[in-house]
Amino acid sequence: MRRFVGDLAGLLDGTDDLSVILGRGAELLGRLVARDGWLPDEYAQPHPERYQQYLLHCDSAERFSVVSFVWGPGQATPIHDHRVWGLVGVLRGAEKVQSFGRRDSDGALVQQGPTRNLLETEVEAIDPRATGPGGDIHRVENAQADRTSISIHVYGGNIGAVERATYRANGEERPFISGYANTALPNIWDLSRTA
Amino acid sequence: MRRFVGDLAGLLDGTDDLSVILGRGAELLGRLVARDGWLPDEYAQPHPERYQQYLLHCDSAERFSVVSFVWGPGQATPIHDHRVWGLVGVLRGAEKVQSFGRRDSDGALVQQGPTRNLLETEVEAIDPRATGPGGDIHRVENAQADRTSISIHVYGGNIGAVERATYRANGEERPFISGYANTALPNIWDLSRTA
Ligand SMILES: [Fe+3]
Ligand SMILES: [Fe+3]
Ligand SMILES: [Mg+2]
Repeated sequence: MRRFVGDLAGLLDGTDDLSVILGRGAELLGRLVARDGWLPDEYAQPHPERYQQYLLHCDSAERFSVVSFVWGPGQATPIHDHRVWGLVGVLRGAEKVQSFGRRDSDGALVQQGPTRNLLETEVEAIDPRATGPGGDIHRVENAQADRTSISIHVYGGNIGAVERATYRANGEERPFISGYANTALPNIWDLSRTA
Repeated sequence: MRRFVGDLAGLLDGTDDLSVILGRGAELLGRLVARDGWLPDEYAQPHPERYQQYLLHCDSAERFSVVSFVWGPGQATPIHDHRVWGLVGVLRGAEKVQSFGRRDSDGALVQQGPTRNLLETEVEAIDPRATGPGGDIHRVENAQADRTSISIHVYGGNIGAVERATYRANGEERPFISGYANTALPNIWDLSRTA
């Protein structure tokens, strides 16, 4: 995790090209979720009623944040957007993802492409410039009806503070600032403990 | 605190000049410690036997870390070095600081300049290139015999992981990796809570 954060900071120091950030960032995140065992239990706890988002690290300049999403059985997000780039990697279990676009005629939301099943260790990029599959408006759901799933999300900002929106099926937007479920972050920086 | 972290990241993005970093960084830290009330109690707890260092934030690329040092009555550090730049600002109470240099003849440590009393809201820079007052080898002590003091330290690296040294009066070095007292950091990034 510490290494992932450092590598991502290096990537952002080296380029502003969003396609490079998403491509190389997906490789780095793929490496992080390929191995389990590093996420402390405090940040892996489901809530009985709603999915949890635990901030794990935020960059000093809020260039990016790393969040663990914990999905109880059957839990889902509302349809929502991000307004910054994103990367999603499944650490445990599986997620169902549906992308949406606006219909020209009346602005209502229409699903774009098939529902994807994102399996353990798989990674998907969210490109805020894109519409359709992998685009910015989506809905995410635990693909497991009987078990917790956990995914690690990385966003191009302090996602809990970004002013964005949730959507109704008719396209109506509601302002949305997600915040975080946790008041304390893991100390990933203490080599004297983890070495 | 969130603003301080962002401003310091911006400063480091803009310059590699250590004198500028220490000068402008001291101004920023001065502003942070001029106001109390923002440090959560968990990171202000003294330990009965030894001073505590609580990591508050570490930069993604480990360019800097922000630490709260909590000194119980009469507690002190050993004589030690840093090997990276540092800034010390007193948030509550007062600190006594002594700087040391090596004697040419036998390498023993000799105090350089007078013992300084760093008072609440005051800031001092640690320049790893310097010897003598404000130099890299020093000893810090709570200046209050009957009360806790707290200072906010900023270092040019992940200070808890830096391989550095403590010293005996005869100049003998011992390897020193300080670590941190805390396994959880404050979540300073949740605007939905703090706004
Ligand atoms: Fe999302
Ligand atoms: Fe020191
Ligand atoms: Mg950072």
